[in-house]
Amino acid sequence: MPVKKAVIAFGGNAILKEDERGTLQEQLLHCKETCQTLLDILERGYGLIIVHGNGPQVGNLLIQVEEAQRKTPPLPLEVCVAATQGTMGFMLEMEMHNQLTGRGLKKEVTTLVTQVVIEPDVEKFEHPTKPVGPFYTEEQAERLRRERHWEIVEDSHRGYRRVVPSPRPVEILEAETIKFLAESGHIIIAGGGGGIPLVREDGHLAGIEAVIDKDYTASLLAREIGADLFIILTRVPRVALHFGTPQERPLDCMTLEEARGYLAAGHFPPGSMGPKISAALEFVVATGKEVLITSPEVLASALEGRTGTRITS
Amino acid sequence: MPVKKAVIAFGGNAILKEDERGTLQEQLLHCKETCQTLLDILERGYGLIIVHGNGPQVGNLLIQVEEAQRKTPPLPLEVCVAATQGTMGFMLEMEMHNQLTGRGLKKEVTTLVTQVVIEPDVEKFEHPTKPVGPFYTEEQAERLRRERHWEIVEDSHRGYRRVVPSPRPVEILEAETIKFLAESGHIIIAGGGGGIPLVREDGHLAGIEAVIDKDYTASLLAREIGADLFIILTRVPRVALHFGTPQERPLDCMTLEEARGYLAAGHFPPGSMGPKISAALEFVVATGKEVLITSPEVLASALEGRTGTRITS
Repeated sequence: MPVKKAVIAFGGNAILKEDERGTLQEQLLHCKETCQTLLDILERGYGLIIVHGNGPQVGNLLIQVEEAQRKTPPLPLEVCVAATQGTMGFMLEMEMHNQLTGRGLKKEVTTLVTQVVIEPDVEKFEHPTKPVGPFYTEEQAERLRRERHWEIVEDSHRGYRRVVPSPRPVEILEAETIKFLAESGHIIIAGGGGGIPLVREDGHLAGIEAVIDKDYTASLLAREIGADLFIILTRVPRVALHFGTPQERPLDCMTLEEARGYLAAGHFPPGSMGPKISAALEFVVATGKEVLITSPEVLASALEGRTGTRITS
Repeated sequence: MPVKKAVIAFGGNAILKEDERGTLQEQLLHCKETCQTLLDILERGYGLIIVHGNGPQVGNLLIQVEEAQRKTPPLPLEVCVAATQGTMGFMLEMEMHNQLTGRGLKKEVTTLVTQVVIEPDVEKFEHPTKPVGPFYTEEQAERLRRERHWEIVEDSHRGYRRVVPSPRPVEILEAETIKFLAESGHIIIAGGGGGIPLVREDGHLAGIEAVIDKDYTASLLAREIGADLFIILTRVPRVALHFGTPQERPLDCMTLEEARGYLAAGHFPPGSMGPKISAALEFVVATGKEVLITSPEVLASALEGRTGTRITS
């Protein structure tokens, strides 16, 4: 029987939590919890293709690079993304092995450095919006604008932050390999941090300082490898209308048309649920298959249809 | 026809040179040169399995982590190794794609995060010898010994440096996958920095602050995947007896027995040519096949038998 393939996306904040420092021990503990959750999907007959975010992790690395700038050359953002594919891939893969052993299961676990070609839409790059890295004072911000030609904006009264483009992914260089290995029964960790962003010009690839939203990369990957299910893990068990208000109404399911309507009506803000819904819609439109949005804590019951939000055609 | 498989090992100093700062541009240039050299092997009918070192790169990352210690939690050494698998894998993979395109070739290039279980020889860990990371003053060294329980030694009158164990690899978790992909025609980048060092206790894997010599990992990988040729790239075109003296005598070839004799006679010092010869011997003994030691600059003529040192059974 061919393996059913599930692509699962979750944020870097599932591994490095806001209220923690983010030591290795803390992150490994959350990797362990996450892997336990993911193995519940595996035990329901799905092959796993895991796409993790890297927000807090790449944030820390940018601080480290910044603090050592007099002693070591800078690592551009795309190189920092590549670094977190190594570090987070290692942590997740090792804990996955440990959890598999604990359940008496034997599976290959494969982590792929993943390069993603972005849309060639230069227009968008002139108005970057995605904040990355440390906060700066106004003076530091001025200096960095001058010296490094960075785009820097004031961020929610907490200081100044660099903003970078957040382009859409158009091609995952390793997609064929991921499909091949997933269909051979491997658990795959790929597209970490949304993938290493590349531009292609006249056939030549080059890195670019940008951040690709991991939900869009996961959606593209799910389409390219013919996934049967696309799962987006988030902080809430169900997507809600009027989120955070007294009128809040969690949804069990949405059709394509309903989801588009809610999105247009502003129920899903750009910085949080918006990209998840858009990424989900792209998958449903292209494949006619289902997307499940839920939180890691209730994933098992969501798979049984008892919670979570489903988007269907 | 089945693909002949060549495992090629080279140091991180082939990418980040001693007399350079090591900016991304500099490193990408050396990745490009290295990939050009490696494609000469491919065009002679070999599948490529590339094992790179990470000395200068992980050194820089350790400095970055150190400089930011008040703002971000430390990354233990094994996590830093994992990071360089991401960063160097990215640079090499991207440049390999560009060089393939330039030659009109089409090949999948796959970079695997690689975890390596080390020998369970606790004895050795009590006398670590491998220096890593920045130099410290005597005062800093004292504090780090106290606070972090690091082993720190004076290093060649340039200051104090942390030393870590350098254990032998015994198992590469991804070896089967590497073999499978290499035999499917992929160019593989794996075992970066010698691999992420793990210990296994009662079936449970955990990282350990150590550095595995990349030549030993490459040798083990070459044996595990049934490589036809093992190439070790180094600074010199040929291995020499009485190296660096007026009696220096470069060698075209050595038998197993001769190599063992020279090693025992002290011709190949522990910090440089010694581990390369030992790693080569392990491969020749296990497989009866050949090892070629040479420099990247003359690899093409070495493959034609015009230079380089061959070790044969």
